[in-house]
Amino acid sequence: MAIEPIRWKGDRLELLDQRLLPDQSVYVACKSAAEVAAAIRDMVVRGAPAIGCAAAFGFALDSRNKSDLKKAFDTLAASRPTAVNLFWALDRMKKAANAEAEAIAIFKEDLAMNRAMGELGAKLIAQRARVMTYCNAGALATSGYGTALGVIRAAFANKKDISVVACETRPYLQGARLTAWECVQEGIPCTLITDNMAGHLMSKGEVDVVIVGADRIAANGDTANKIGTYMVAVLARRHRLPFYVAAPTSTFDPKIADGSAIPIEERPAQEVTGYRGLRWAPEGVAVRNPAFDVTPAELITGIVCEKGVILEPNRERVLAMLK
Amino acid sequence: MAIEPIRWKGDRLELLDQRLLPDQSVYVACKSAAEVAAAIRDMVVRGAPAIGCAAAFGFALDSRNKSDLKKAFDTLAASRPTAVNLFWALDRMKKAANAEAEAIAIFKEDLAMNRAMGELGAKLIAQRARVMTYCNAGALATSGYGTALGVIRAAFANKKDISVVACETRPYLQGARLTAWECVQEGIPCTLITDNMAGHLMSKGEVDVVIVGADRIAANGDTANKIGTYMVAVLARRHRLPFYVAAPTSTFDPKIADGSAIPIEERPAQEVTGYRGLRWAPEGVAVRNPAFDVTPAELITGIVCEKGVILEPNRERVLAMLK
Repeated sequence: MAIEPIRWKGDRLELLDQRLLPDQSVYVACKSAAEVAAAIRDMVVRGAPAIGCAAAFGFALDSRNKSDLKKAFDTLAASRPTAVNLFWALDRMKKAANAEAEAIAIFKEDLAMNRAMGELGAKLIAQRARVMTYCNAGALATSGYGTALGVIRAAFANKKDISVVACETRPYLQGARLTAWECVQEGIPCTLITDNMAGHLMSKGEVDVVIVGADRIAANGDTANKIGTYMVAVLARRHRLPFYVAAPTSTFDPKIADGSAIPIEERPAQEVTGYRGLRWAPEGVAVRNPAFDVTPAELITGIVCEKGVILEPNRERVLAMLK
Repeated sequence: MAIEPIRWKGDRLELLDQRLLPDQSVYVACKSAAEVAAAIRDMVVRGAPAIGCAAAFGFALDSRNKSDLKKAFDTLAASRPTAVNLFWALDRMKKAANAEAEAIAIFKEDLAMNRAMGELGAKLIAQRARVMTYCNAGALATSGYGTALGVIRAAFANKKDISVVACETRPYLQGARLTAWECVQEGIPCTLITDNMAGHLMSKGEVDVVIVGADRIAANGDTANKIGTYMVAVLARRHRLPFYVAAPTSTFDPKIADGSAIPIEERPAQEVTGYRGLRWAPEGVAVRNPAFDVTPAELITGIVCEKGVILEPNRERVLAMLK
């Protein structure tokens, strides 16, 4: 059964509560932009394309409710700062004549872009490849198929005998909870590791290729993605492994020249000092919790988007693809 | 108050149960080599030098009990495979005329070596340095002062205005639970991060130097240490940061030519799928859990041991220091 992170019901948006996965599948109903913004901020829904789709429906809800749309825009735009899909979707919504139709179009286009990336990206995955991925760039991070995990899904559907190495992705454990769960659901062989094992496995020759998603890609190809992606890219380079990013063109932000201008969200300390109700760090310790980092374009073998693959990305090639 | 991970009481060995830190300080009493071996295997006590000291006292207990010492040796030697201090201590015990006196000597020598490393290593730490460390190489990992954290402790005692960046060290969280706790106890400013943030902080210029402990160092300087150390070393090299290892000569294994021959312990899957009673990974996912990795000598700026600092370690320089 297909995973449905986002369900539009006309008068409400139902979001699969990703905080409770893989233990429970519970949908949260949102009836206004403010409720959708809260769901984005609180990580009920996460993943750059999914955030964009959810925000579009949030705007459509307030349009239906005849609420102040300037306020709806601002509330949704303030929910999370790094993923550019949020701003891309809201800009489209602001200009749309029919808000509901536009939100549905954004959702359907995302699904189509996922499928296109899957087919293009699958060609880059060798028969029997051991594919490392990071965080969750799957059905749960999108309208329902996935970017990086969509590529893996397509390669698997195309009868490639692949296996996945999923990095758990502290502190929020999207790899352990969400990517591992999606792979188990689909029957794709998956091995879970802690993030700090990535280098060891590469050094032992147990990884063939890396593919990750993205939250925002600058004009020169520098890519913001979940914290730790940069570490994996540096290790892949040392071990001469191809490192791919999969992201629809809605994740590109050509107004930003390079990664240094991408805002990096800093999240609450309690995500680092423990997990859910369990605290393991002592009182009195300071904490940093940047949610994303930037992988420079020079470490990226190629960016798979729905229109093609940008090999050895740089400003010229990125802008050519976005034309 | 000094942290005492290991207390010798003549008829029993008391081990501070590190599984319960930082929440509770509880000592486990061991009255035989088998009980000490179980405590090592179950991680009541951990850290290469501390394992060596505990094993020595375990042997002394069976000597006192007039038990089969061949069996005591084998049981202790089978407890954990990677840290060579265990085998080094047992070899000394086997040859000793007075087992109790020898175990006490091993313990006291470890403390003296820690202090000597602290003074030598502190000279490598600049005034106001932001020092990244990994896992716990502190008082808890030794007889009671620390190797890498001993260097930090000595620099702090020498009035250097330093701060620590502690990587949490999944899956067992020795950084979050033990290193952060030791720093808070001592009043050393400490910031906790998840392991995957190390590269991001380095890329932002927020780290000046890295220092870690070791579980086994081969003749050429290749160093086995807690899983993830290799990742930090690769990142330090990319950012041109000095990367130091602090370890007493009891951690060197000159019989092993290079790191490829160091046995890497694989630990139970449930350490990765959750923490304590809490499970967050889905059923059905495969797991890898190598407890250590190997950092090649070429990535190591210097190894601080009690006799001096081996800069740019290689076979010739390592063997010269061990003479």
